[in-house]
Formats: sequence, C-alpha cells, structure tokens
Amino acid sequence: MASNETNPIYEDLMKDYNTELTHSGVNGERLAKRLYELSFIGYTQVGGVKRPGLSDEEKKAKELVKLWMTEAGLSVTEDGAGNVKGRLPGKDNSKRAIASGSHVDSVPNGGNFDGPLGVLSALEVVEAWKESGYMPPKPYEVIVFTDEEGARFNSGLSGSRAMTGDMSEAEMEGLRDYNGETLEQVLGRYGSSLQAFKEAKQDVTELELFVEVHIEQGKKLEQADQPVGIVSGIAGPAWLEVEFLGEAGHAGNTPMIGRKDPLVAAAAFIQKIPEFPRQISDTAVATVGKLEVSPNGINVIPEKVTLHVDIRDIYEGPRDQLLELIRQEAESIAASREIGLEIKQNTKIQPVPIAQNLQEQLADSLQKFSIKPTYIPSGAGHDAMILGRHVPVAMLFVRSKEGISHNPKEWSSLNDCVAGVHVLKDFIEKAMEQ
Amino acid sequence: MASNETNPIYEDLMKDYNTELTHSGVNGERLAKRLYELSFIGYTQVGGVKRPGLSDEEKKAKELVKLWMTEAGLSVTEDGAGNVKGRLPGKDNSKRAIASGSHVDSVPNGGNFDGPLGVLSALEVVEAWKESGYMPPKPYEVIVFTDEEGARFNSGLSGSRAMTGDMSEAEMEGLRDYNGETLEQVLGRYGSSLQAFKEAKQDVTELELFVEVHIEQGKKLEQADQPVGIVSGIAGPAWLEVEFLGEAGHAGNTPMIGRKDPLVAAAAFIQKIPEFPRQISDTAVATVGKLEVSPNGINVIPEKVTLHVDIRDIYEGPRDQLLELIRQEAESIAASREIGLEIKQNTKIQPVPIAQNLQEQLADSLQKFSIKPTYIPSGAGHDAMILGRHVPVAMLFVRSKEGISHNPKEWSSLNDCVAGVHVLKDFIEKAMEQ
Repeated sequence: MASNETNPIYEDLMKDYNTELTHSGVNGERLAKRLYELSFIGYTQVGGVKRPGLSDEEKKAKELVKLWMTEAGLSVTEDGAGNVKGRLPGKDNSKRAIASGSHVDSVPNGGNFDGPLGVLSALEVVEAWKESGYMPPKPYEVIVFTDEEGARFNSGLSGSRAMTGDMSEAEMEGLRDYNGETLEQVLGRYGSSLQAFKEAKQDVTELELFVEVHIEQGKKLEQADQPVGIVSGIAGPAWLEVEFLGEAGHAGNTPMIGRKDPLVAAAAFIQKIPEFPRQISDTAVATVGKLEVSPNGINVIPEKVTLHVDIRDIYEGPRDQLLELIRQEAESIAASREIGLEIKQNTKIQPVPIAQNLQEQLADSLQKFSIKPTYIPSGAGHDAMILGRHVPVAMLFVRSKEGISHNPKEWSSLNDCVAGVHVLKDFIEKAMEQ
Repeated sequence: MASNETNPIYEDLMKDYNTELTHSGVNGERLAKRLYELSFIGYTQVGGVKRPGLSDEEKKAKELVKLWMTEAGLSVTEDGAGNVKGRLPGKDNSKRAIASGSHVDSVPNGGNFDGPLGVLSALEVVEAWKESGYMPPKPYEVIVFTDEEGARFNSGLSGSRAMTGDMSEAEMEGLRDYNGETLEQVLGRYGSSLQAFKEAKQDVTELELFVEVHIEQGKKLEQADQPVGIVSGIAGPAWLEVEFLGEAGHAGNTPMIGRKDPLVAAAAFIQKIPEFPRQISDTAVATVGKLEVSPNGINVIPEKVTLHVDIRDIYEGPRDQLLELIRQEAESIAASREIGLEIKQNTKIQPVPIAQNLQEQLADSLQKFSIKPTYIPSGAGHDAMILGRHVPVAMLFVRSKEGISHNPKEWSSLNDCVAGVHVLKDFIEKAMEQ
C-alpha cells in the first residue's frame, strides 16, 4: 500500500468537509474512507488508478465492495459477466426492485471518482437506512457493472450490455484485448466463461427504475455553482468516417490551378462543422477528433484524408438531422471541388432521453437540499444509457473540478459527493413510497 | 537480368520514334539503348528502379556511365563524394569549362528518366561531336552527381552540395540513413571516406556555365503541346512547421460554445492557404502535405495539431512575401480563436532564378527546331539549383507524360528526349563559341 504522502485523497477529501452534511445516516467520512480504500487498487504512481475491465484490479475492487455490501446486510450475487448485485429486501418483495450503481473499472490512468462514486453513493443509501432503521417498501439493489470504460477491449459498457442482452454473440466472440486475448480467454482467467457471460442476460424489466450517480465530466455545474445536477438525457454518438480522395502531386511542381487537394477540401469541411450543432439544438455537438493524411509528406500534395466525425445529441431525431446536415456538407464540398468522397457510418447508438417525470422528481429532491436544478445532457455513455433502453432511468451528476475526468486530476469535493448521496437517497425513498 | 517482357522500355521507346530526329550525330537509338541498359540496375518488379544514393546500384549505374564516357573519349575522374566527371578537352584549355549532367540515383521505386536523361543527354552531345568531328573551343564536362534524390538520408542533393561546399560538416556528421548508418559508414562501404567526402569541395566557379536537362515532372509542356521547355527559375522551398494548441476535452461532454479546438483553427488556416499564392505571382505555390492530430481519438477534442506548409517561388522576394502572408494568417486565426500557436521555420532554401540572357539563348535554340518556347518554373530542387548559387546555370525540361514522376510510370517519349538533346547541343555550341 502506498503511503499517504503519495495518495493523500482521504486528507484532501476531509480537509474542507462540512461535517454538518453528515446527517440522516449519510456519513461523509465513511464515503471518503471507501473512496480512499478503493484508490489503492490499481494505484498508479501519478495518483491515478488503472483497473481495466475483467482485470485482477477490477476484481479486487469488486471484492472490497462485496465485503462492504455484506456488512451492510445485502445479499450478494455475481453473474457470469462479473456484474455484482447486492440486494436489500423490501417490505413487499413481490414488487419490482429499484436499483442504483455504476462501475469500478477505469481507463488506463483514470481518476478515483468516475464509477466508484456511483457505486459507493448507492451503497451509502443502504448504510443510511441501516442507521435510521428505515426498511424500504420495495427491494433495493446496488449494482457494480463490469468493464464500463472499455479500456480492455476498445469497446465499453460490456457488463451492462451483457445484462440487458445488448451485446451480440458475434461481438463477444470477436473481441480482442490489449494483449490480443479473446473475451473467452480473459473470462477464463477471471474465473468465468464465455458461456456464463452469455447467460448473464436477464430480464431487466424486473427493475422498476435504475438511477446512477456519476461525476459530471464537464463544467456546467461549476459554472452554475451547484454541487449536483440533473441529467436531461444521455447522448448517443453517431460516428461518420469520411474519406476525401484527391490527386497527389509534387508540392513544388503542381500549379495551384487545377489541384485536387483533399486536405483543403477536408479543411473546408472541418471548419464548417461547428456551425451545424447550434442550428439543431442546444445539446447537440459535433467533433472531428481523428484525422489521417496520406501519404503525409511535407512536399507532397495529399492523395487521401480520412477523418472521423463524432456527432451527438440526447434526442435521436435532432442527432440524425445533424448527421444528415454534416453528411450533406461533405458531399457538397467534395462535389464542388471535384474531390472523391466515401462516407461510412461505423457507430450509431440510440440516445436515451430521461423521462420528464423522473427529472421533476430529481428537481424536487434537489430543492429539498436548497440546490438549484441544473439540467445537463450527458455527452458520454454510461451504464444507465444501456439500462435506459429497457427500463426507466435517472441520472445525477456531481460537480467535477474543471470538468476533468479520465485523468488522475479528476476531483469532486466530499461536500458535493455527500450532497449527491442525500439527493439520491431522497429520490429513491420517494420512488419507494410510490 | 529481367526479360524484355517485364521491362519493355527499349521497344516502347523505339516503337513511335521518328528516325528523322537522328541527325547531326545525335542518335535516338543509342539514347534509348542506354536508358534501357541503365533501367536494369536496381530494377524493381513493377518496372521501376531503386538506386538510392551511395548504394551498390547507384555505383553500378555510375560504372556503366564511366565506361560510356571513356569510350566517348572523355577522361574520367570521381571525387570523394562519388561525383563522376568526364572531361573533354577544348581547343583552348585555359578557358573555363562548360558542364552538363544530372544524377543516376532514384527514389525507392522511381522511374527511368528522372536523372539518367540529363546524364545521357550531356553524354549524347559528346557522341554527336565525336561523329561530326567537332572540337569545342572550351573544355566540356559531363557530370554525374551523387545522391540527388535524398532517398537514403532523407536529405538530398548531397553530391552537388559536397562539390560546392554547401553541406556543413555538422550535417555530414549528423546524417543517418534508412539503416541507421552514418554517412561515414556508408561512404566506407562505397569505397570512400568522410574525409574524402569533405575534400570533394571544389571551386565550381572554374565552370563558366552548367546546364541540366531534366524531365518536367509537371504537365505544362503537355498542355502547351511542346517537347521541350525552358526553366525560368528553380523555386526554393521554405517550410513552416505550424503548431495549433487548444484544449482537449470529451467530444460528448464539452459544449460547442467555449471550445478551443485546434483542428478547427488549423482547418480555417489550411482552407485559406490556396488563396495566397495567386496574390503574389503566377509561379508561387503553397501546400500543406503533412499534418498530425494529437491525441487523435475519435471522441476527443484535439489538444494539438502540427502541420507543415511548403511554400515556393522562383524569386526569393515574392516567396518570402508569401511566407509572411501565410504566417500572418496563422497568427490572426490563432489569436481570434484564442488558440495557442508556435511557428518554426525549418528549411528556407534560396530560389535560383535563371539569367534572362541564358533563357533567351535557350529560346533561340528551341526555335531553331521549331519548338515554341514555354517557360516553366521548376518547383522541385535540382543539382542545377545548387550549382546556380555559384555559377550561371540553365535548365531544359523535357515533356513528362501526365506529369508523373518518382514512379515507375514516369515516361518521356524518345522523340521528346532526342529533341532535348538537339536543343542542348545547339545551346552548348553557341556558348562554346562566345
């Protein structure tokens, strides 16, 4: 175990903690200690964590959470995909359960909040109920999903997709991890099997509602000066692969007139992209993050430029409208410049809107703690997005310092984290009573 | 030796040759045979050649040329850089020599004309004089320069720069070839040494004039329907390395407003570049051939874009004006978008204008053969560019099929090649008589 000097997360969390937030059974110190204990599993020298999906580190992190679950009185099960569930019986166990949770895996050098905060917040609700002697009318489940980040297989949300049946057998069989190993090999070492992974599929409509707490990974709450906000929808990305094909030539010997330079065409296209999202909605975004030039020689007019456009909105209609605008722009630029064009659509994930009534209930809970509701679209995918295709979901964002995530610098103050637990607990209790 | 089936260059050259062009001692068939014989040295299966500078292949090609030189009555010498000279005495050997030549090395899968045509044309002038019994008033030299293309060391014009003293000792000592070997190691295997390479420097002003025949590597002669044209100047490239620095972020979670996307800035810049050269001159060109995005992830707003602008003109003033316009555009785009900017100037080679009187003399020679003068700026560098910093130089371009070069498909018809020899011979004879 590293010394506190190199991993001062507990002291840092506690030093400006407002202990008045510890009430109604919710205990900030316990939450801080648990974030701290998890932070040692897969600890990287620079203060981050490395817990790839289905790794020893992810497994150890789950073992620790299972221990806490058992201590809190939950009955713990794990499915063939490694998803862990801790179930608390309700007064009426014939009713559908309400569930909350997140993940404990991380990107290669990730932070201590993305994932763990959602798991520990869900667990803290149980701890609070235990202290106050509250027994929920319906069953309650704390869920830890496997491999949300996708750092291992370059494909994420594996646990939640295995649970809902949203991962095809072809995908399961085609996955190769960073060592070239198949999912089957990785699962074998983990203590499961491909067959058990396939059998992890369950009827998730047995849940009444899933709610996830997650750090914002953006700056809107910081700008609004609020600790917690309401996710208004989870954007589904559509990825276009766009290839502009021109005519290579010597940069010195080819006159400017008559050139068919695919990089100039790609530049005209990229430049135009930021104009489109605002024509569609306030929540739409479009980004070119990846671009390759061929042959990529200083004195050679390029022959080919391949780029990827990431297009998102929380509603499918506007997202697809944006997709179409961008596709048309590429076509019009290529045609007017006599540049060849090929467009492939590799990824198109359905956005998950959050039901209005659930957003209103979250707003009520926020206001109870004097937090002004801020509505934030989630640009990133989350396990709640996968669950949301099948059952009602809600999401709370906790303020993220400078919006940094997937980075050792990722930080949310303990005050904000505890505020999130209070809101979550209130929201779940209301849903329990309905 | 490959069979004629896979290397039909001789038949292809001869099949539409107008034998009436064989006159005044200039022999098209001999030129075709020599192009053909050279084409087997470093022959690649796809019909091209691979003769890197200072390779066994380049050496063999020079040996063959030296044999032909000797047979033609030239006295042959080779300097420590591997530059080969064949000298024909003149009537008055106290006068400065007139020289012509080019190179026999190639890019990794090059064609059969870029380089060899210039060497063989210079040699064909001697053959013609031999046949007609002409003795030039001044000495004449045929020169084969080493490593013009730079395929070996990622840096070209080595032989001519060694000869003129335009390669610094620091560069000589810093060069590493594609095998990681130093110039010294490569020279050792070639049969020379670094010391001998350094001693290759000579006073090139001992030459009165250097004239090079080269394929056009462009389409202007094809468009003008003329076999041979006059090089109006040799453009010197200036290379700017431009770095746009923005703020990385998650493509889904970062609102469009407030983004600092360096790729959008770079795109605005690249898009604008083609507008500038025409504001400067008809011969100016500017190209972005190389660009890298960092971190280059589909769902990550880039943090940094590094690109290279290749800027050329045949006159230094306008070239530098263009450089300045482009630099200012980068600065203005970066400033208006709050994007960081770093500009480095790695390469800035002085363009070599061709003296007006030499262009006029070439025009006279062209007209003698009913060829309409076409004036073409050379965008690419040539050995004549290096010599041109020290002595008067002239250059003739021979029509290049579809402007293709550095490619096995490189092609000039034998009629055009022979027309080039006639013009070269006439031009040299006039210079000899002056």
